[in-house]
Amino acid sequence: MEKLVKGNLIYGQSGGPTSVINSSAYGLFKETRKHKDIIEKVYAMHYGIEGLLNEDIIDIDKYNDEDLKALLTTPGAIFGSNRYKLNDDITDKEKFDKIINLFKKYNIRYFFYNGGNDSMETILKISRYAKKVGYTIYSIGIPKTIDNDLVLLDHTPGYLSAANFIANSVSEIYYDDFSYKKGRINIVEVMGRNTGWLTASSKLAELNGAKIDLIYVPEVDFDLDNFLKKSKEIYDKKGHCLVVISEGIHDKNGNIIGKLKEEEDVFGHTQLGGVSVYLANLITSKFNIKTRYIELSLLQRANSIVPSKIDTKEAIKCGAKALEFALKGNNEKIVTIKRVSNTPYKVNYKLEDIESVANKIKFLPLAYINESLDNISDKFFEYILPMVKEKGDKEIFKAFKL
Amino acid sequence: MEKLVKGNLIYGQSGGPTSVINSSAYGLFKETRKHKDIIEKVYAMHYGIEGLLNEDIIDIDKYNDEDLKALLTTPGAIFGSNRYKLNDDITDKEKFDKIINLFKKYNIRYFFYNGGNDSMETILKISRYAKKVGYTIYSIGIPKTIDNDLVLLDHTPGYLSAANFIANSVSEIYYDDFSYKKGRINIVEVMGRNTGWLTASSKLAELNGAKIDLIYVPEVDFDLDNFLKKSKEIYDKKGHCLVVISEGIHDKNGNIIGKLKEEEDVFGHTQLGGVSVYLANLITSKFNIKTRYIELSLLQRANSIVPSKIDTKEAIKCGAKALEFALKGNNEKIVTIKRVSNTPYKVNYKLEDIESVANKIKFLPLAYINESLDNISDKFFEYILPMVKEKGDKEIFKAFKL
Repeated sequence: MEKLVKGNLIYGQSGGPTSVINSSAYGLFKETRKHKDIIEKVYAMHYGIEGLLNEDIIDIDKYNDEDLKALLTTPGAIFGSNRYKLNDDITDKEKFDKIINLFKKYNIRYFFYNGGNDSMETILKISRYAKKVGYTIYSIGIPKTIDNDLVLLDHTPGYLSAANFIANSVSEIYYDDFSYKKGRINIVEVMGRNTGWLTASSKLAELNGAKIDLIYVPEVDFDLDNFLKKSKEIYDKKGHCLVVISEGIHDKNGNIIGKLKEEEDVFGHTQLGGVSVYLANLITSKFNIKTRYIELSLLQRANSIVPSKIDTKEAIKCGAKALEFALKGNNEKIVTIKRVSNTPYKVNYKLEDIESVANKIKFLPLAYINESLDNISDKFFEYILPMVKEKGDKEIFKAFKL
Repeated sequence: MEKLVKGNLIYGQSGGPTSVINSSAYGLFKETRKHKDIIEKVYAMHYGIEGLLNEDIIDIDKYNDEDLKALLTTPGAIFGSNRYKLNDDITDKEKFDKIINLFKKYNIRYFFYNGGNDSMETILKISRYAKKVGYTIYSIGIPKTIDNDLVLLDHTPGYLSAANFIANSVSEIYYDDFSYKKGRINIVEVMGRNTGWLTASSKLAELNGAKIDLIYVPEVDFDLDNFLKKSKEIYDKKGHCLVVISEGIHDKNGNIIGKLKEEEDVFGHTQLGGVSVYLANLITSKFNIKTRYIELSLLQRANSIVPSKIDTKEAIKCGAKALEFALKGNNEKIVTIKRVSNTPYKVNYKLEDIESVANKIKFLPLAYINESLDNISDKFFEYILPMVKEKGDKEIFKAFKL
């Protein structure tokens, strides 16, 4: 093994917040304090790469262990996130040089970036440029996304807490609607542009005795006529109908359903929102049935109320493991979670090449979708149940049975 | 004291669910089991008065104590609620007779109705009709409403749990937005047609280090131009702006802001919703500023995740006290919560005439609104803080300070 280069460490957050992203920061920072011989100083970028480019840097050493503990219960991405996209190193040469110069100025050798698939590309670009100019860094990606869409990971930190919130919210909506003999067609809109992992997690509401009539995910084309017909039939029969949909459902031509906004964010995604409003209004105007749209919106990713205990634990571990792996001389790698066993639930942390993860998408397997493509199959429980078995993670409420 | 008439008991739920309405049912039912000598059988109406008229009645005696315990953690109004409105006893004579006949058939002498100000009117009408036809009943109202708008009560069961959810959600939204250097104008829509109690509770987010820039309640007229000007100014200066509004805010002519729906419910209220969507779109189209609307919708009243411990305790007590008071021969009364002291927090349960509560509204005192009428004053903390001091009720998260 090559001799490890000593130096300082910088950590950054990127992309949408999760309930546990700050727990990964905690895990990393705590671990650094055991290795003062190699890592003298620890910094965080304020607002990720965008902040770094403005030399907006936070000194982590000024926080004592007690201060750091509050990271475990702080929602949002407290060090500041960003959706800044670096172009190739020819177009953006000036920026890449600035980053390397700042790394030199602060003697940064350890670079940790906490994000999803877009953010992993940022690590890749920076570490490759560092190599090009002959500056040694150890760059490690710490995974994070409520979307659960990173390839090569069994699941991503952030997913289970969001799933907890979604399942509880959907259960509550179910019971609220059943408070009335004749309820509404309730349409719950869950995040997920490309994948249905979050929407699928609503299936956990069944553990609370709730029943979701229809679930639609972006992995399959959405047939509007069929949806209108089915939801009306269910409502006519039961006086209730509970529908959960991903924000990113689209027709067979790939057009997002009910798309209201046309803005494009810097990664080229379309800003979504409003599909539940669209569908609810459509049903009411067509059939004169009472509807309600419920967008879980930010609450599902900012949820500080019911973080999954397993999720928090794993997020901390991903942060700590990132350092452990870096200190073995690794570079351009991402920490991944691999499931080892279901009973008892056990995972291992492994490294993968960032290149194999960056900008790729892990879709919900078709086996997790039912045959009529309008619900989640029971097979999905085999995947998710072992991860929500910890006390406090499921059965947040035990429902009275009439 | 007149001799108490022995007989059976019936309980009903009415109006919108709260997090703790089923806890009141629990408190009542548990208490009945100590008085089998007077109350032989216990029933619940399935869907309130509406269900009763269909003789849809649930036998509570078939549930053991363990079954009943699940009521404490069940969201919604599990016995079925309704918004059924009885007309006067001449127009609806047939229905009143049917109710009295069913009371006779099931030997009901104890009639408990769990609801808000509309529901109290139902009790009043039924008990007066019973008196008119010479049938003795003991009717007691058990208070319930997240709106906190019942007169003669310091606060209503259901309010504190909703307040907990609102405060936490608003805190999370604050931190989520501050994850980015430049955020959005976030507009959070809270329930409250006539009163701002729920919206005011968002002020508790300050305990988590959040800051709410603008708060608008229905107690004061909403000045749209002023709002647009202020929110833009704040956003231009900070790159963030957090606004919390009641669904029922209206202009100086009483017109609901951004009213989208025209339906009228049976109590003559207008179905609201959509004011945050309206304002968010207005800002974006006028100023090209990124906005986000977040409707807390059902989640604030169905919240099973962070019920306030004090709220649950008091809801149980209101149910139990209702029976205690009925067994003293009271009729046409409502159980009320009176605050006795703040340190330590202590309440008493007293009876008031239902007539003094039914169809009246307790507004947010103007002293709780700031001078510029666009926020909640610190004075409100004197009211709410003593009630959220129990561990687990505040500081659900402790935020890391940069």
